[in-house]
Amino acid sequence: MAETLLITRIGELVTNAAADGSGGPGGFAAIADAALVVEGDRVAWTGSSARAPAADAVVDAAGRAVLPGFVDSHAHLVFAGDRGAEFAARMAGRSYAAGGIRSTVAATRAASDAELRAGLRRLAGEMLRQGTTTFECKSGYGLTVRDEARSVALAAEVTPEVTYLGAHVVPAEFDGDSGGYLELVCGPMLQACAPHSRWVDVFCERGAFGADEARAVLAAGRACGLQPRVHANQLGPGPGVSVAVEAGAASADHCTFLSEADVAALASSATVATLLPGAEFSTRQPYPDARRLLDAGVVVALATDCNPGSSYTSSMPFCIALAVRDMGMTTAEAVWAATAGGARALRRADVGYLAPGARADLIMLDAPSHAHLAYRPGVPLVRAVWQSGHRADAR
Amino acid sequence: MAETLLITRIGELVTNAAADGSGGPGGFAAIADAALVVEGDRVAWTGSSARAPAADAVVDAAGRAVLPGFVDSHAHLVFAGDRGAEFAARMAGRSYAAGGIRSTVAATRAASDAELRAGLRRLAGEMLRQGTTTFECKSGYGLTVRDEARSVALAAEVTPEVTYLGAHVVPAEFDGDSGGYLELVCGPMLQACAPHSRWVDVFCERGAFGADEARAVLAAGRACGLQPRVHANQLGPGPGVSVAVEAGAASADHCTFLSEADVAALASSATVATLLPGAEFSTRQPYPDARRLLDAGVVVALATDCNPGSSYTSSMPFCIALAVRDMGMTTAEAVWAATAGGARALRRADVGYLAPGARADLIMLDAPSHAHLAYRPGVPLVRAVWQSGHRADAR
Repeated sequence: MAETLLITRIGELVTNAAADGSGGPGGFAAIADAALVVEGDRVAWTGSSARAPAADAVVDAAGRAVLPGFVDSHAHLVFAGDRGAEFAARMAGRSYAAGGIRSTVAATRAASDAELRAGLRRLAGEMLRQGTTTFECKSGYGLTVRDEARSVALAAEVTPEVTYLGAHVVPAEFDGDSGGYLELVCGPMLQACAPHSRWVDVFCERGAFGADEARAVLAAGRACGLQPRVHANQLGPGPGVSVAVEAGAASADHCTFLSEADVAALASSATVATLLPGAEFSTRQPYPDARRLLDAGVVVALATDCNPGSSYTSSMPFCIALAVRDMGMTTAEAVWAATAGGARALRRADVGYLAPGARADLIMLDAPSHAHLAYRPGVPLVRAVWQSGHRADAR
Repeated sequence: MAETLLITRIGELVTNAAADGSGGPGGFAAIADAALVVEGDRVAWTGSSARAPAADAVVDAAGRAVLPGFVDSHAHLVFAGDRGAEFAARMAGRSYAAGGIRSTVAATRAASDAELRAGLRRLAGEMLRQGTTTFECKSGYGLTVRDEARSVALAAEVTPEVTYLGAHVVPAEFDGDSGGYLELVCGPMLQACAPHSRWVDVFCERGAFGADEARAVLAAGRACGLQPRVHANQLGPGPGVSVAVEAGAASADHCTFLSEADVAALASSATVATLLPGAEFSTRQPYPDARRLLDAGVVVALATDCNPGSSYTSSMPFCIALAVRDMGMTTAEAVWAATAGGARALRRADVGYLAPGARADLIMLDAPSHAHLAYRPGVPLVRAVWQSGHRADAR
């Protein structure tokens, strides 16, 4: 029998467990004065601290809150270079230019595997220390067969949630020939990337890829066993969300500029709306209206969009604070979106909640309730992290 | 001779040293490829890494940035209780009510010295781990002679920058008799607090204390050897800034609603404008216009306003990120305001800069430049902290 660990005297245990007692994931749910037992890599028991069973080891939470580990379902972590100077210039008055991506593409192509791996592991470690126990990782800064293939292979070293994003932007050498680049993306590049990937993604936006191009990318990916997700409606209205829903995508990401039809399509689909407020913070764009989506019945996830151009945060607590301040979410909705919502956006049934059978991915806060993640913005409140039942943080 | 420590290969050393080579503090200044020598509790040398002298011990910064420790010149850290539920309710739609302070006053009065000390030390440690090496701490949640006196005495255990803020709000037992409360504040309460305090502060705002009341509080404090500072123009236009300038206050804090005369008065005075964007973030109020102040020649400081009601952040990096995104400050201006600006607001000549003779309070970032504090919002980038020459962080 696996070792058991009892965490006791939890001030607030956020479970996100189904209200019907089925043991599966549900809406936001929490237990006061709670305890939790981990057995091996799984949650074995949750309930009142007073009724907690014995275990091999005991951790006293002393009234602190325990939550499911964050699930960051949208991140671009394989890259080289730094765009701090571009950021500072933009903040001093220049508007956001997507062209900045090309400097990251050049640096990524020029970097060794070891350099890319070191950068990726640094960010993965940073995320873990901030409580992110599951994360997605996209390619998209290589944009050659070789560089996309090594991007997804490197990503697969650190997460199973690898996304092939050859269709991120048309690289400079294909200027004026997006058709030629799409043939590469849907042909040899896809063939090289599919073995390392679970997902296929496309940046469907004016200035990037149109609806038919996006459909072609998703269809080609699906033919290679990849499941679709879409960058949609970030910079303006457009067909991204409808393409995502039509393709049965797990998620449409950004969702800032939505028509009524977009909202209705999301609400009647299994496609999650993944909101990425770090991007709006760092580009001074309007925030997506989470309240409108929630009120319409859309499932909402929060993620970091961690990338060196438009959102270089790896902090899920920061995204929760922004969602509560600027996007109309309650603290409970934001925490659910950053845990169970992310799991839905990755179609994962084992993470984002804490009930018997769930993976034992959990965090303890230096705070008595989940609300402190928004009440105490910017403060590193994650005190301890367990991933698959093991202590995984540095502190 | 004291032990020497050489920090070498610093990617960017922010010195804020005077450009005239006098060795004193100046405007924002930085050295690339730099080194720094600490001797005992002081900085002994700064310059190019290539010309660094030998030392007893060496730390390799490997290209990371080193900055002066943050100087947080406005914080309310002596209190008991938690207003997370009030915060969550406000975010869900209720407007900010100053009356919430009374719940903290009741909890603070009911708490033991040991409880207050534990909370204070927890926050002081949290600040230190985030790079704050000097902080101010106000009373103001006791509002009786006994409770104000123990508040400043507890604060004096952790910082020399103790501020007597009996004139925070009129307590419930003096409803309708603010004159009676002011007699207490300027009389026996002041007598009890002055021995533990350096500063006297007053909340000069509609609904709190008017101009004449504020003048009386500052004059009484000055007669007991305390130097003035003022909470001014946070919630609306008013006389706070002009009272502060007239009194020769070290700082007027908040400064959100300023007339042209207020700006001109600040610009021609030695009074620093201390901006507290954490409060605007957590109450959804408009941010102060730092650009207007800077362009007029006003000295600007950034601080957290850490308190359980309107701004429960202890993170100076978070305040820097907000100042850059929402207040019109460049990354260099924001970092200067959070270090040298805070020192000016506390009239401290030994901190906020790094040059020979300065106190060896410094931080190393997990980043190559100061800009990353805004470029990577929410991410705990402070890797190491030295206070008076000693490593002082947990990591």
